[in-house]
Formats: sequence, C-alpha cells, structure tokens
Amino acid sequence: MATPAQRLMPTSARPTAAALRDRFRAVRGASEALAAALSPEDACVQSMPDASPAKWHLAHVTWFFETFVLERAESDFRAHHPAFRELYNSYYNGIGRQFPRPQRGLITRPSLDEVLAYRRAVDTRVLAVLGDDADAALLATVELGLHHEQQHQELLLMDIKHLLSVNPLHPAYADATAQVAAASAATGGWQDCAGGLVELGAHGDAFSFDNETPRHRAWLEPYRLATRLVTNAEWCEFIADGGYTNPLLWLADGWATVSAEDWKAPLYWRNLDGEWFEFTLHGLQPLDPHAPVVHVSHFEADAYAQWAGARLPTEAEWEAALADQPCAPAFALHPRGSAGAQPFADAFGQVWQWTRSAYLPYPGFSPAAGAVGEYNGKFMSNQQTLRGSACITPSGHARVTYRNFFYPQQRWAFCGLRLACDA
Amino acid sequence: MATPAQRLMPTSARPTAAALRDRFRAVRGASEALAAALSPEDACVQSMPDASPAKWHLAHVTWFFETFVLERAESDFRAHHPAFRELYNSYYNGIGRQFPRPQRGLITRPSLDEVLAYRRAVDTRVLAVLGDDADAALLATVELGLHHEQQHQELLLMDIKHLLSVNPLHPAYADATAQVAAASAATGGWQDCAGGLVELGAHGDAFSFDNETPRHRAWLEPYRLATRLVTNAEWCEFIADGGYTNPLLWLADGWATVSAEDWKAPLYWRNLDGEWFEFTLHGLQPLDPHAPVVHVSHFEADAYAQWAGARLPTEAEWEAALADQPCAPAFALHPRGSAGAQPFADAFGQVWQWTRSAYLPYPGFSPAAGAVGEYNGKFMSNQQTLRGSACITPSGHARVTYRNFFYPQQRWAFCGLRLACDA
Amino acid sequence: MATPAQRLMPTSARPTAAALRDRFRAVRGASEALAAALSPEDACVQSMPDASPAKWHLAHVTWFFETFVLERAESDFRAHHPAFRELYNSYYNGIGRQFPRPQRGLITRPSLDEVLAYRRAVDTRVLAVLGDDADAALLATVELGLHHEQQHQELLLMDIKHLLSVNPLHPAYADATAQVAAASAATGGWQDCAGGLVELGAHGDAFSFDNETPRHRAWLEPYRLATRLVTNAEWCEFIADGGYTNPLLWLADGWATVSAEDWKAPLYWRNLDGEWFEFTLHGLQPLDPHAPVVHVSHFEADAYAQWAGARLPTEAEWEAALADQPCAPAFALHPRGSAGAQPFADAFGQVWQWTRSAYLPYPGFSPAAGAVGEYNGKFMSNQQTLRGSACITPSGHARVTYRNFFYPQQRWAFCGLRLACDA
Amino acid sequence: MATPAQRLMPTSARPTAAALRDRFRAVRGASEALAAALSPEDACVQSMPDASPAKWHLAHVTWFFETFVLERAESDFRAHHPAFRELYNSYYNGIGRQFPRPQRGLITRPSLDEVLAYRRAVDTRVLAVLGDDADAALLATVELGLHHEQQHQELLLMDIKHLLSVNPLHPAYADATAQVAAASAATGGWQDCAGGLVELGAHGDAFSFDNETPRHRAWLEPYRLATRLVTNAEWCEFIADGGYTNPLLWLADGWATVSAEDWKAPLYWRNLDGEWFEFTLHGLQPLDPHAPVVHVSHFEADAYAQWAGARLPTEAEWEAALADQPCAPAFALHPRGSAGAQPFADAFGQVWQWTRSAYLPYPGFSPAAGAVGEYNGKFMSNQQTLRGSACITPSGHARVTYRNFFYPQQRWAFCGLRLACDA
Repeated sequence: MATPAQRLMPTSARPTAAALRDRFRAVRGASEALAAALSPEDACVQSMPDASPAKWHLAHVTWFFETFVLERAESDFRAHHPAFRELYNSYYNGIGRQFPRPQRGLITRPSLDEVLAYRRAVDTRVLAVLGDDADAALLATVELGLHHEQQHQELLLMDIKHLLSVNPLHPAYADATAQVAAASAATGGWQDCAGGLVELGAHGDAFSFDNETPRHRAWLEPYRLATRLVTNAEWCEFIADGGYTNPLLWLADGWATVSAEDWKAPLYWRNLDGEWFEFTLHGLQPLDPHAPVVHVSHFEADAYAQWAGARLPTEAEWEAALADQPCAPAFALHPRGSAGAQPFADAFGQVWQWTRSAYLPYPGFSPAAGAVGEYNGKFMSNQQTLRGSACITPSGHARVTYRNFFYPQQRWAFCGLRLACDA
Repeated sequence: MATPAQRLMPTSARPTAAALRDRFRAVRGASEALAAALSPEDACVQSMPDASPAKWHLAHVTWFFETFVLERAESDFRAHHPAFRELYNSYYNGIGRQFPRPQRGLITRPSLDEVLAYRRAVDTRVLAVLGDDADAALLATVELGLHHEQQHQELLLMDIKHLLSVNPLHPAYADATAQVAAASAATGGWQDCAGGLVELGAHGDAFSFDNETPRHRAWLEPYRLATRLVTNAEWCEFIADGGYTNPLLWLADGWATVSAEDWKAPLYWRNLDGEWFEFTLHGLQPLDPHAPVVHVSHFEADAYAQWAGARLPTEAEWEAALADQPCAPAFALHPRGSAGAQPFADAFGQVWQWTRSAYLPYPGFSPAAGAVGEYNGKFMSNQQTLRGSACITPSGHARVTYRNFFYPQQRWAFCGLRLACDA
Repeated sequence: MATPAQRLMPTSARPTAAALRDRFRAVRGASEALAAALSPEDACVQSMPDASPAKWHLAHVTWFFETFVLERAESDFRAHHPAFRELYNSYYNGIGRQFPRPQRGLITRPSLDEVLAYRRAVDTRVLAVLGDDADAALLATVELGLHHEQQHQELLLMDIKHLLSVNPLHPAYADATAQVAAASAATGGWQDCAGGLVELGAHGDAFSFDNETPRHRAWLEPYRLATRLVTNAEWCEFIADGGYTNPLLWLADGWATVSAEDWKAPLYWRNLDGEWFEFTLHGLQPLDPHAPVVHVSHFEADAYAQWAGARLPTEAEWEAALADQPCAPAFALHPRGSAGAQPFADAFGQVWQWTRSAYLPYPGFSPAAGAVGEYNGKFMSNQQTLRGSACITPSGHARVTYRNFFYPQQRWAFCGLRLACDA
Repeated sequence: MATPAQRLMPTSARPTAAALRDRFRAVRGASEALAAALSPEDACVQSMPDASPAKWHLAHVTWFFETFVLERAESDFRAHHPAFRELYNSYYNGIGRQFPRPQRGLITRPSLDEVLAYRRAVDTRVLAVLGDDADAALLATVELGLHHEQQHQELLLMDIKHLLSVNPLHPAYADATAQVAAASAATGGWQDCAGGLVELGAHGDAFSFDNETPRHRAWLEPYRLATRLVTNAEWCEFIADGGYTNPLLWLADGWATVSAEDWKAPLYWRNLDGEWFEFTLHGLQPLDPHAPVVHVSHFEADAYAQWAGARLPTEAEWEAALADQPCAPAFALHPRGSAGAQPFADAFGQVWQWTRSAYLPYPGFSPAAGAVGEYNGKFMSNQQTLRGSACITPSGHARVTYRNFFYPQQRWAFCGLRLACDA
C-alpha cells in the first residue's frame, strides 16, 4: 500500500537511498546543533501548553522514525524503551495513548543525555534499514520524517524563545551581541495581479505534505498585493493611532482576546521607560523600525489591515502572485527585512504571512492512509493559514505551496503580514 | 450616505413605504405571538451565555428600530428610557457600551409588561416616521430591522428550547400532544453536479444581508450532493458503530470537545431505559427514525461524514446545486423531514445544513457603512457556515444565498447535515 | 428515636401543639409577605451560585416540611409532585439526589403560582398532622422547620438584594423613598472583660440548633470589646488611608481575593462622581456615615481590625461579654445603627459580626441523627463564625448563642464588625 | 528593636555565635546534600503551583539570609545579583515585588551551578558577619534563617516527590532497592486524658516560631487519644467499605473536592491489576499494610474519623497529651511506623497528624515586627493545623509545640492521622 509521501510523487522525483542517508545525517545533526546552546534545564522546561520542551522535540522526532520506519522495517523490532511509545507520541491516536501535552515539561527523566543516546541508537538503526535496496515506501516515510523533523526544528526555536522570554533576566539563546538591525526597509508598493482561473497546490514533482494537494483550480478576481511586509515602524503608527483600543477595527473574537489578554503590542515587545525593545533569540534588543513586524496574531494582522484600509490576501492570491519567487532564503534567528528594492524579496525567510483563508482541505483532498494520515487533516478547523517562511525555517524546508497554520490568537510563531486589496 | 441595505438593491426592488408598514405590523406581531406562550419567568431567564432571554430579544429588536430608525428620523428624538441604550445594545461598539451578555438574564426589571409597552411605543413612532414620503435610506433601514427581528424570532425559539430542556419536568413550549413523527424518510441518493465556473451570492434584486454580497464567481470541480438530509436512524447507526468513541473520525478540536463535554448523542437526545427520546418544543417525544437529525455540532457533522465515507459540501457546492429549489417552506416547531420522493425537497424548512466552509468574506466584500456595519463582518472568524433554513425559520426569511454561521462546537441551533462527495 | 431538636430541650421547654400551630401560620405567612413585593421574574432568577431564587426558597422550606414532617407523619403519604423531592432538596445527601445548585434559577416552571399552591397544600397537611395528640418528635421537627424557614427568610432578602444590585436601573425591593439615615452614631469605647473560665453554648431551655451545643467551658484571658459597631465613616478613613491597597494589612488569602476581585469598598458601595452611595433594599441611597458598615467580608473585617490596631473577637469572647444583652431587635431592611448611649445596644438587629473563630464543632458536639444531621456539622470547614443578628433577621430568630457562618470571602450577608483587643 | 526570634527567648537560651556558625554550616550543607541526588532538570521543574523547584528552594533560603541578615549587617551591602531580590522573594510584600509563584519552574537560568555559587558567596558573607561580637538581633535572625531553611528542606523533598510521581517511569529519588516495609504495626489502643485547665504553646526557653506563642491556658474536657497512627491496612478497610463514595461521611467541602478530583485513595497510591502500590521517594513500592497511611488530606482524615466513629484531636488535646514524648526521631524517606509496643512512639518522625483545629492565632499572639512578621500570621485563614513531625522533617526541627498548617484539600505533605474521641 502506498504511503502518503509516495502517493504524492512520481517515481522519478524520489530521492535515492544514498541521497536520503546524506540528508538524514544532515537533518538529524542540525537538530542537535540547535539544541547545543541549551542547558539541561533549558531543554526540559515547558513554558506554556502550546509549547514543548526542546528535549521532547528531540525525542518525539526520533519516536517518529522509530514508530513509522523501524517498527515497519525491522523484522525483529524491539522498542528502545517501552515507555517512550506513549511518552513521545504527540497526537497520533492511531498509534495509541499519548502522555498529556501540558505535562511534557514535567518529564525530568529521561535526562537530555539519555534522549541524545536514544537519538544515536535510532539513527544507527534507521541508517541500517536505509540500504540501497530499501523500497519506495520506506524511502518515502524517511523523507516525510525528515520534513517532520525540520518542522520541529522551527518549533524548538519558537518554544525556546518563549521560555527565555518569561525569564526576567532576558537571557539570549545565542550571541547576545549580534546586531539585529536592518539597514533600511524596502520601499513599499502594490503589485497588480490579474486573477482569473489559476492553478494552486503541489505539482507532485517534489516532496510536499498531503495538505498541499491535490493541485487544483480556483477563480480569482483582480487584486493587488503589497511588495513588502509590514514593518515595525508602521506597527508603531498603528499603536499610536489607538489600534489596540478601538473595537471597530477588530474581529469580534479578536477584540475579546485583546481585552482578556490586555494586549498592547506584539508578543515580545517591551516598553522600557518609553522606548520599545524586542525580546529576540539574541536577547533584548532595541526595536528596529525597518524590520518586519513579527509575533502578531491573526487577529492583530486583520485589525492592522482594517486600519490600513486594506485586507489580508487569500492563500490563492498569495500563491498565484508569488509562484515564481526564488525560495532559498538564508537562516537567521531574527528577521531583518530585505533592504533591496526587489519587490517580494521578503516572500521567504523573514516572517510567516497570515492570510485571510481558513485552514481547510483543498478540493479533492484526502488524508494519507494509515497513522500518518493524522498528520494534517484533523487540524482543519478553527485555524488560519500562513504562507511564505520565516528566518528560522530550516534551509530547504520552504516552498511556495507550503501551508502553515495556527489558531488566530496564537503569536509565538514568527508570524507577520503582507497586505492585499481589491484591484 | 447610502445605508447598507440600500447599497444592495436597485431602486426598483425596494418595497414601498405602504408595503413596509404592512410587513412591519406583521413581523412585529409575529414576535409577540411567539412570546405569548411564555410566562414572565420563561421570558426572563437565560440558560447559558450563548442564549438570551425572550424578553431581551423582544427589547433588543425594538432598540434596533429606536436606535437606527427613530434616532435618525425624529428631529425631536427622545429615548424611551435612557438606560435601554446600553441595556439592550447587543454588540454594537459604534453605539456605545453594552450590558454584559452573560448577565442578560439577571434583568428582572423592566418586567415583560414594560417591555411590551416599550414595543408598542416604538411601533407607534416607527409607523409615524414611515410615511409615504419616507426616504430610501429610512425604508432600507426599516427593512433591515425586520430581517433582523426575524433572525431574533428564530433565536428566541432556540433559546427557549434550551431553557426548557434543562428543566427536569420537560415542559413543552407548545402543544405537548402534537405528533412530531414523520411518515417516512425520502429515499436517499446522490445528485451529480458538474461544477465549473459558477456564480454565487446575492443578485441584488431583493433584500440580502451584506455577507451574501457581492455576487462573484468561483470554480468548482465535479461533485455529488445527497438528495436528502441525514436521518435519526442513520445517526443511531453512527452511535452504534462507536462514532462518539473513535478519535480517528474526528477533527482534533472536535475530539477535544467530545471528550471534555462527554458527548454521546445530539444535544437534546435523552436515553431513558435504553430507548431514545428527543426533547422538542412539543416536550419530550420518542425519537423519530425518519426525521432529519438535528442539534448536532459541526464537529459531529464532520465526524459523521468521515464515518460515512463522504464529506460536507462547501458553501459554493450547496448554493450552485440548490439555486433553483423552491424556497417557501412551512413553519413548524420540529423538523419532520420531507416524505416525498422529490430530491432536495428538504433543502429549506427542515434543518440548517453545516458546510465545510469557514465563514469568511466573499471576494470584494466590504461591510456596510456606519454602526450597522458591525452586523456581520466582525464575526468572520472561527465560525462555520450553514445553508438552507430550519423549520423554525420565519416564513419569508429563507433564501438560497443566505449564510448562517455558528461556532463548530455549537449545537443549540436547529442544525443537521447533508452529505457530499467528490465525483 | 429522638430527633435532633428533641435532644436539645427538656420536655418542659417544648412548645405545645397549639402554640406551634400558631407559630406555623405566622412564620409561613411571613415568608409569603416577604415575597409579595416580588414579580414572577424577581422570584425566579438566581444572580450568583451562592444565592437562590426567592421561588426556590419558598419551595425548599416547604419541601423540608413535606419530607421531614409529612413523609414521617402521614401513613398514606403521597408526594405533592414527584419531581419536587429532587428539585427542592438543597443538600441532603441522605434524602437523595439534588438538582444542581447553580441551575436553580433556570427552573421557570413550576411557576410562582404553582409554588404558592404547593405551600398551601403542604400547610393544610402539616396543620392536619399537628393535632394536640402530636408526639414530641413531630413537634420538635416542626419547630426545627420553622427556624429553618426563618433562616431562609433572611437568605431570601440577601439574595433578592444581590439580584437587584446587578440591575443598572437600581430597583428598590421596597419603599424607595424610605429614609435610611441614622440620627447619629453611638459614642465608641471599650468594655473591659475579665475572661477566666466561662460557659458557652445553648442552655437547652429553649430551641437551638445542634451547632450551639453542648454547653461547655472555655478559658479566656482578659480582653476588651468595642461597645459599638464599626461605622461607615470609619470605613471611609480606612479606604482613604489605603486600606484596600496595602498587602501588609491583609491575610494572604484575603489579599489574593482583593487583588483578583479588584475590591475597593464594601460590596454595595457605589462611587458616583466622587460621592459614596450604597445600594439598599430601598434602592440607591447616599452613604450614611453614622450607620454601621455592612456587606464586608471576613477578609475585609480582619484587615480593618489590623489597620485599627485591634483584632476581631473570638466567639467565646463575644458570647461571654454579651450574654446578658437584651435580644428583641426591631426588623428593618437596612441597619441604621443605635443612636443611644447604651453600650452594646447594637449587639442584635443591626449587622452580623465577624469573629476570628473558625466555624468548628464545640467540644462534645455530635450532629443530630438522621438526615437532618446534615443541617450544620458538614459545613464545619473553611468557614468563619459571625455573632449577633442583622436588621433583616426575622423577629424571634436571634439569640446570644446563635452561630452564623460564611466563607471568609463572602459578603452578601448583612455582615459587619465589632473590634476587640487584649486587655 | 527586638527581632521576632529575640522576642521569644530569654538571653540565656540563645545559642552563641560560635554554636550558630557550626549549625549554619551543618544546615546549609544538609540542603545541598538533599539536592545532590537531583539532575539539573529535576532541580528546575515545578510540577504544580503549590510546589517549587528544588533550585528555587536552594536560592530562596539564601535570599532570606542575604535580605534579612546581610542587608542589615553589612555596611557596604551589595546584592549578589540585582534580579534575585524579586526572583527569590517568596511572599514578603514588605520587601517588594515577587516573581509569580506558578512560574518559578520557568527560570532555567540562572543554572543550578549559578545558584550553588550564590549559596557559597552568601555563606562566606554570613559567616563573616557572624563573628563573636555579633549582636543578639543578628544571632536571632540567623537562627530563624536556619529553621526557615529546614522547613524548605522538607518542602524540597515533598516537591521533588510530587514531581517524580507524575513521571510514568516512576523514577526513585534515592535507593530504589530500599525496603520500606515495616515489621509490624504497634497494637492500637486509647489513652485516657483528663483535660482540665492546661498550658500550651512555646515556653520561650528555646527557639520557636511566633505562631507557637504566647504560652497560654486552655480548658479541655476529658478525652481519649489513639496510641498509634492510622495504618494503610485500616485505610484499605475504609476504601473497601465505600469510604470515598458515601457523602454522609464527608464535610461538604470535602465531598465537593472528592467529586471534582475523583479521589479514590491517598495521593500516591497506585492500583496495578488489583494490587495497591505506593509511590515513594524510593520509587514505586508494594503498599505496606502496617505502615501509617500518608498523603491524605484533612478532608480524607476527617471522613475516615467519621467512618471510624471517632474524630480528630484538637491541637490542644494533642499537645497536652504528648507534651512529654521524646522528640528525636530518625530521618527517613518514607514512614515505616513504630513497631514497638510503646504508646505514642509514633508521635514524631512518621507523619504529620491532622487536627480538627483551624490554624488561628493563639490568645495574645502578635506577629513579629518588620518584614519577617509576614512569616506566619498572614496565613491564619482557611488552613488546618497538623502536629508531630514527619520522617522527612530535618533532625532537630521537630518539637511538641510546633504548628504545621496546610489547606484541608492539600495532601502532598507527609500527612496522616491519629484518632481521638470524647471520654
């Protein structure tokens, strides 16, 4: 039976076993490199129910390989540790029970060292089954597992940033002396887009998640898309104009959230004696007016667009307009904007961009068969899609058809916005 | 400046002042007729934050006319009671502060009699300004007010049903001896629909809410739509097959809700000694297997569709397929299904039908100007649309472009489902 | 087997059947007189979980007679309505299930009229079994039922006051033109009390609740007791001196409550344009500086005492000092203080007085046998005792050994304070 | 001005500076010894709001010395780290703001090593100011600080036990192979106690907390006290007899807690395939029937006593009866009971014993002056006292007048019970 990833790709597009082994070593190593800056305490603690400990991320992605690759490929499979099946299962009901998510940070044992040993053991076993004779299903599942691990690399950075942000000592994840200021913002402007009958979704000539499929048609009226992201300076104007205190700008659920949470600025902004600072992975830094605003919720993005006399783009508008943008951004711990004059140069590698589209199945979508079918489809309710990618998105993980999604009130992802309007 | 309703209609389509006066008397009278079966206590109490007291509905719709019609049309306007501006404002931030929604049931005074007196006083004043020389803006606002009042007539019945349902005496709103059983269910089947580039939304030749506009194009792949609604008998099979206990059938948020609320059946089903009964506005009744299932949430509807190997239709699919269905259903306090063989005979007048579409703005949508602009647009987040109409929807209020919306976990509306699938 | 009340009294002290019939008519009539000012809506609604609807009070006290008197005394007992046994059971687990307390206000049917009919039917039946040949157990239970009903009369007024207080129209329960101002406050002062080995608790020569027994000894060090209650004027000084903003004055749980609830004044004080008003059963009234402060929690009373360099008295100190005070105060809807110079003239009939004693069993206490044993003992946890009586306490219900009790954060009872200090 | 501890002791009873330096080294070293078995993760995480991380305990007790000793004794005082004043202040409003208690576990930095360095730095400075010429106030504050640190040693073990208990791997704090089984339980029995006018509270000839003072008189009726603690075997009988399902045994607040929390056994009992196990600091162990029951709430203790036809003793009864018991128990990580025949041999060093007394001030009590006055008095609300000491209470910390206190629903302390009844 075809695995989900297999289903999405023509044979010709599949990486070889040799290529996958290389990528496996690279991606697995990258996770550990990200965790290297963390103390055992940093790696263990969970700062809110939405976040997970770094140690949990390191173990869960390993569980994914153990469960979906080793358990199926090893004839004499034995679990590395019998308790891990439940402890590191995130949400796969098809696999069995899961340890309660809000308590992930309470698992002080196994230690970080034991989790790293778990990783090494599973790495060895995966590489052993990933020989040149590995069948296509196995290759596809390993490839899925690597993309899954990259998603968790981004989550790990989001989560560690949140954890450090609640510490009154403002500790830096890395290099507190780094300059995060942008030289200058690109000049703003609008790009006219013709709309009409467009094609969207993954082509099937390279890896994609099931939620990007099938490729399908949609009709768009003419529209305009902002050539650059909204900046911190612009967000300051929104604040100064009473953006956070005027209910008429907000969706009803957004206004309820603003009121209940007493939001007055993006998540990591700190006002010290009248000056705005921003908590970053490089520690507390003066707010850079030219950088794109980041860590705003969908509610805030929508209110800003309302205030600006514009709106957020739909997913289809975003994808149709930016289908041909190059997508190989540099990795960084904080978005610096794109100083150049090139329109849409900040499509990828800066901040995820909220759309006005709810996260729903594409026409003709069906989730992958088996337990990995729980990967995406069951979250298609109450969430909002984002497009592009962020500065902390792992290299090679971004693509124009990628559909990221969060609840409209969430803002610990590296999310910002790009405006749109009707033509 | 054009009012929202005005904006939506060509002059030729507007009702005359004389016709509006007749409709005003009819609609206003209908509200009071619905409330006539209620004691002062029934009319005062609020059984959950989502519901409102009947007395509040009667007063709020009157406040709407006082605020949006009289305050603008009377040169010597004086409020009927100065406290009512805040007390009976539902959510219009543009008008000012609102009395907290969850406390609406605590307002024992003014009494029901005083609220009925408020109605009569405002009725007199509205009819006085609604002379033959009334301008188009005034006429449009009155028409909007009447549609608004009809929405609250349906809410009033939903809310009173919920209130009576929590009473262990199972009191009937009306006629506890009424037979609610259907003769038989229509034969099920699928209608093939071609899709392609379709047109959706209000034509503008009659009244519609702003959220139904503008008329626009959408692209649909071929699909199939069930010719009748899902029945109670079918829902019993879903329950018997473990529908409420299998997480793999559910959206993640749905499963969380089922677990937290311990749902085991639709909202008003009661299992007495192994037999299913259903609480209705006619009191507790044996469950009719042939009637359409009602009072299921979007989460339940989606899980049922998953179980049935189908899915919910999108809004566009629903509207494109049923655009030509007759829409003049009979009013009733409980859905009895449509016994006839005619496909889609149950499109209107039975139960609202959940779609898989989130409640989002149509391309080109902009909310009405002024305070009534808060009518619809600000709720376009986290909610799911429903199509058709229910047995308790007031006569003349249903139309094929109508977009109803509720949160996916809500189920006190008369909501059910019709299946769809890909062609 | 002896009933609880029987156990407490020598035969000689028991009222005769004839006397009880007279009291029964008087007390039952008094409840209905208190409810006469209420509309059906007023009588139905519950404004918070701690409160109950007036209609519920009227029914529950009737249920008490039906369950504990008629069910035991009538050989052919039939319930007035089978559902009432659960619906109007407050908390007697020994009797069976109870309708959930926070939902009492949702029971719009039976109507107020039906409850009044329930009362009349039970009255007739109780008087029928209360013949001159009624045995001692029956007489004792009827007497307990009458004291129980008097407690609910006071609760009914507390609860209706809270309900009306949340209404922005400030409706008066009765006579909104009544003057509630006191002429002047009594001169304050301290009474020296010798302490030593004192006797406390009910003598057994008249009715008392089981929690007042047994009479027992306690040792007291010398102390001083304030000869009058703390006044509104004094409370204003406390507020002006930052009483509500200085954590050092407060018990830790008190400070947590003040912070969470944002308390700034007693429960029913309203500051309108810089002037203090007080919501009373006579509607909103200017604050009377000479009247005793009322509707303060134990936390507030304790913080005030701390601020004043004093403390609250213990139960034993209060009872030992005031054992000989006359106890036949006039009924009123709001405390006016006692203008005279007589020390302790305000011991009864003004406000309940918080003590520093937790509500715990007396040495040798055992709860009454049978279901009425749930009357008092099971509440002996987390609550604080109050002594004296309030202006709204029914005539004949107050006595020096009476132990009232509420949670330390509650303040909708008519509660104030009298200071004490060490000698 | 006299410090609180100073106030409590005659000059002759004060330890010398030399003796205090020795005790300082011993107590400080003991804290670190307790933490030595913990990984950095173990020491950082907080498993519930009532608990604190071990690292926080180590830092907070150090903050106590820094704030109350060094800041007053060093003329050139400089804080070890400016942020620690707020970060490690527990609840002293007199000192300033406090980092929110429920977030203590989020402070991954400073690391455990940095906290240990903080300890060493403060140790050096305290020993420097604690010369032979140190004045009495300084000595008294150091002594208070050492008793404070011993309290936190016990809390540290309670908290780490709770943390490990939520881990599905059942990790042991220490020596998972230790035998925790008792040889046999002492024979039960009752000791008759005469009561009368007794003296209670600290004598003032040795250290005590302010809440143990002043010594005062109380009157007791004759009573009987159980000569040994309630055992696990007895608790099993209570469970088997429906103890957790019969509301008539429970205080009303207790029953609400049992129902809401779904309690079916003491906190750390685990039923595996029909056998009872108990999670201990030595890991999961078979339940020892002869050992005293531990980790029951006051609510459970009260219900058990009710079921057993007895009651809990008052504080005064406990202290009067056990005043002459030797109090030098051996330290252990789990209570094993006292196998010997000696009555009351288990008064100390096994489990804290719930009393029926609320935690209230003694007659004549006044809290210590200054910020340390927040030590005890402000918690005298809603809590229940316990007497004796537990197996994990540090050596030298127990005494007959010691008043421990917890909320009646709390059960993560090592708390059990001893029965009493009226003579």
